[in-house]
Amino acid sequence: MNRYDNLANVLGDRIEQGLYPAGHRLPSVRVLSNEHGVSVSTVQQAYRVLEERQLVEARPKSGYFVSLLKKRADLPAVCRNPQRPVDISQWDLVLAQINSRATPGMVALGGGTPDVTLSSLKPLGRSLARVAQRTDISALYYDTIDGSKVLRDQIARLLIDSGSNMDAENIVITTGCHEALSIAIRSVCEFGDIVAVDSPSFHGAMQTLKGFGMKALEIPTDPVTGISIEALEMALEQWPIKAIQLTPNCNNPLGYNMPDDRKKALLRLAQAYDIAIIEDDVYGDLAYQYPRPSTITSMDDDGRVLLCSSFSKTLAPGLRIGWIAPGRYRDRAIHMKYIGTGASATQPQIAIAEFIQQGHYQTHIRRVRHQYQQNLCIMTDWISQYFPEGVRISRPQGGFLLWIELDEKIDTQKLNRLLEPEKIQISVGSIFSASGKYRNCLRVNYAQLDEHVHRPAVKRVGEMIHQMMLMA
Amino acid sequence: MNRYDNLANVLGDRIEQGLYPAGHRLPSVRVLSNEHGVSVSTVQQAYRVLEERQLVEARPKSGYFVSLLKKRADLPAVCRNPQRPVDISQWDLVLAQINSRATPGMVALGGGTPDVTLSSLKPLGRSLARVAQRTDISALYYDTIDGSKVLRDQIARLLIDSGSNMDAENIVITTGCHEALSIAIRSVCEFGDIVAVDSPSFHGAMQTLKGFGMKALEIPTDPVTGISIEALEMALEQWPIKAIQLTPNCNNPLGYNMPDDRKKALLRLAQAYDIAIIEDDVYGDLAYQYPRPSTITSMDDDGRVLLCSSFSKTLAPGLRIGWIAPGRYRDRAIHMKYIGTGASATQPQIAIAEFIQQGHYQTHIRRVRHQYQQNLCIMTDWISQYFPEGVRISRPQGGFLLWIELDEKIDTQKLNRLLEPEKIQISVGSIFSASGKYRNCLRVNYAQLDEHVHRPAVKRVGEMIHQMMLMA
Repeated sequence: MNRYDNLANVLGDRIEQGLYPAGHRLPSVRVLSNEHGVSVSTVQQAYRVLEERQLVEARPKSGYFVSLLKKRADLPAVCRNPQRPVDISQWDLVLAQINSRATPGMVALGGGTPDVTLSSLKPLGRSLARVAQRTDISALYYDTIDGSKVLRDQIARLLIDSGSNMDAENIVITTGCHEALSIAIRSVCEFGDIVAVDSPSFHGAMQTLKGFGMKALEIPTDPVTGISIEALEMALEQWPIKAIQLTPNCNNPLGYNMPDDRKKALLRLAQAYDIAIIEDDVYGDLAYQYPRPSTITSMDDDGRVLLCSSFSKTLAPGLRIGWIAPGRYRDRAIHMKYIGTGASATQPQIAIAEFIQQGHYQTHIRRVRHQYQQNLCIMTDWISQYFPEGVRISRPQGGFLLWIELDEKIDTQKLNRLLEPEKIQISVGSIFSASGKYRNCLRVNYAQLDEHVHRPAVKRVGEMIHQMMLMA
Repeated sequence: MNRYDNLANVLGDRIEQGLYPAGHRLPSVRVLSNEHGVSVSTVQQAYRVLEERQLVEARPKSGYFVSLLKKRADLPAVCRNPQRPVDISQWDLVLAQINSRATPGMVALGGGTPDVTLSSLKPLGRSLARVAQRTDISALYYDTIDGSKVLRDQIARLLIDSGSNMDAENIVITTGCHEALSIAIRSVCEFGDIVAVDSPSFHGAMQTLKGFGMKALEIPTDPVTGISIEALEMALEQWPIKAIQLTPNCNNPLGYNMPDDRKKALLRLAQAYDIAIIEDDVYGDLAYQYPRPSTITSMDDDGRVLLCSSFSKTLAPGLRIGWIAPGRYRDRAIHMKYIGTGASATQPQIAIAEFIQQGHYQTHIRRVRHQYQQNLCIMTDWISQYFPEGVRISRPQGGFLLWIELDEKIDTQKLNRLLEPEKIQISVGSIFSASGKYRNCLRVNYAQLDEHVHRPAVKRVGEMIHQMMLMA
């Protein structure tokens, strides 16, 4: 992240926390320049970013003032889940959602796909083409089970940003984060075991638990601080939980970054009860803060955390290249990798390694992060404008997904069915619960927003909800 | 396959079956031309092929004669396995073998890699490069769970050669045949179930059973006709077997094609006991006969056969593109695919579809098949020349793998350890058994033979075996 974005975030946070109240005059450019040791023009650029985000207004000859903001929407409520392990349902619904997204002409507001159209991704296409035509044909052979060393080296370098200092030997390349999660689950659990999960939680990971015959125990989760340590401790007292599976950074679907002290508390709890933690960090590099938040893995000192990630959200999902850092479970993870896919495709690994090594990864990440942060304001604005009053909206600190809670009367499965003939799709809330909770919630994607495509679609969703409210 | 190769095979079979005895004069070119309705030059080319294979000798002005063949090596013996389900061991050995192959400078006689250096594969590199640089970026998105329709269409077309008439909808793209087998096993079995397997059997599939907690029941298998139907029936009477897993065509490691009547008998047995068949056909398109042998899948009329295959042996393993045709188990297979890898990589699917659609696949297959058939003679010759007398050798009818049975005193794990410092590796027999049988057997790969690399390596293996015999 560049300096002005960084400064803009610092000031933005202060405004959001109320340190500079609405209408208040902000420090002068010169004062900030001295305070933060940056140039005058950096401060000016930071203020321009805040103007774009509608947090700040420039008044000629008077300086910058905190906007008289519209009241922000409330946060989604913490779900009071009944605390008992359940068999996971919702597969039919997950499948229907995935298939419906593939319908030609569908405006898929609900998907998990990043923006892959940016020019900063172009060097990757060139690398892939180069590798495909190399006279060195080693990329056509079977790779080793743990994947190409060149890529594992680059991933080890990237992991430094999340606080980890790890050898390439601790990393195993996978076919996307899906395979990483699948390996992680099979490395630490057996048929019938109980796994504690954040709630709402990524449906893909929960379906993996289902597929391998495990039960999920949904733990109440705060939309700002994440999984409740207190509730988790109670659950650990009561049930023979084998592992905790969660997304502590840029959570899907809630968007929070768990504060470091809560990550540490979670780790201490896992140590006390001697259980594993499966940490999904697939959106972690898309955090809006700089430096990006730490992983629980980086705090782990006895190898009980299995870090799962991929390039699906940062670069492109169609590459199917991810990784797992399985800690003390490496031997088992290698076996699970072998029996799942044997090895991962070699060519994309070499191309991605080249892309990172040449500095294109960081350039691309800076660019998409900036875009997603801007799009968040736009999408939040559209939702506030078109959805009924009282709608609750998450406040993502990274990634490109927004979680929306509607009036309890609204069933988003029904909403989705009504929208389908109009070729609009949302992600229904119930797939984010093992037992079909969150029926009045939905998830939308703001990675790539087209004023002429997405605004009318969001507007139409809003109208449909209004209609449903009248009929309810 | 072209006409002269086909004719050469017909004549070669007659010679092997003793219809034309050693030293016997063969029919004249003109007679064969009339009998088979082919041109004189086709017959001449067929005779040249048989000369190359050392089956036939041309005597000037007298015509063609059956070679006074050296006595061929005996076939490997059928293993009399104790018939009870066992937990699968050998993982440490499988892993050691895979890791050792990756050692720089290693002459890996034992691997399962095809020849990927042929010019007939070049158009695939060009297709991959084109797809990587397309302005249509849809290949960067998540694919549908079942994979790209363009590729499934082409696979459905290829499957016609194996006797199947199947819609693209019945096919699910996977990350290599490994994932296909992994999905198949999880679609029909649960933790603790018993699976009947051919023996020797592909170690990857057995390790998958191990990884998911299933037991293997090894069924005696004939090196020419395949798994014993009689032994299988006895086992089905005695044990609650859930599925049969086998490679009926171009078997790995024995190389046989199961005769059609035995495939039908196997299917009838599966129907009678209402169990599933997992059919690994990954080498099937590399059969030396034309048309290629039928799959059990093509005879299946109630959807109980799950066909598993990939382009790893026909094109290149590094692509990691395979497929499963899961029959009546499709719903479960789709769930298993989703929780394993989510989707497969999109770009290689599109490139392979283009490669097949433009006719390059058939051209390439004809070429490698011809090469492998020639190399089989060369490798068999080397083994007969350098290994101790009494060695038993398989007679592959397709693929590029040879199974060799040594004197019972020889432990091929020890042989492999002795060879390692000399940078030579074989596949040890015991990984092809669930319980470590076949300790006196080994598998070698003859896909790509270099007179200056592989002949000295085979010679060295032979010398080492001679030495071990002396010490035994």
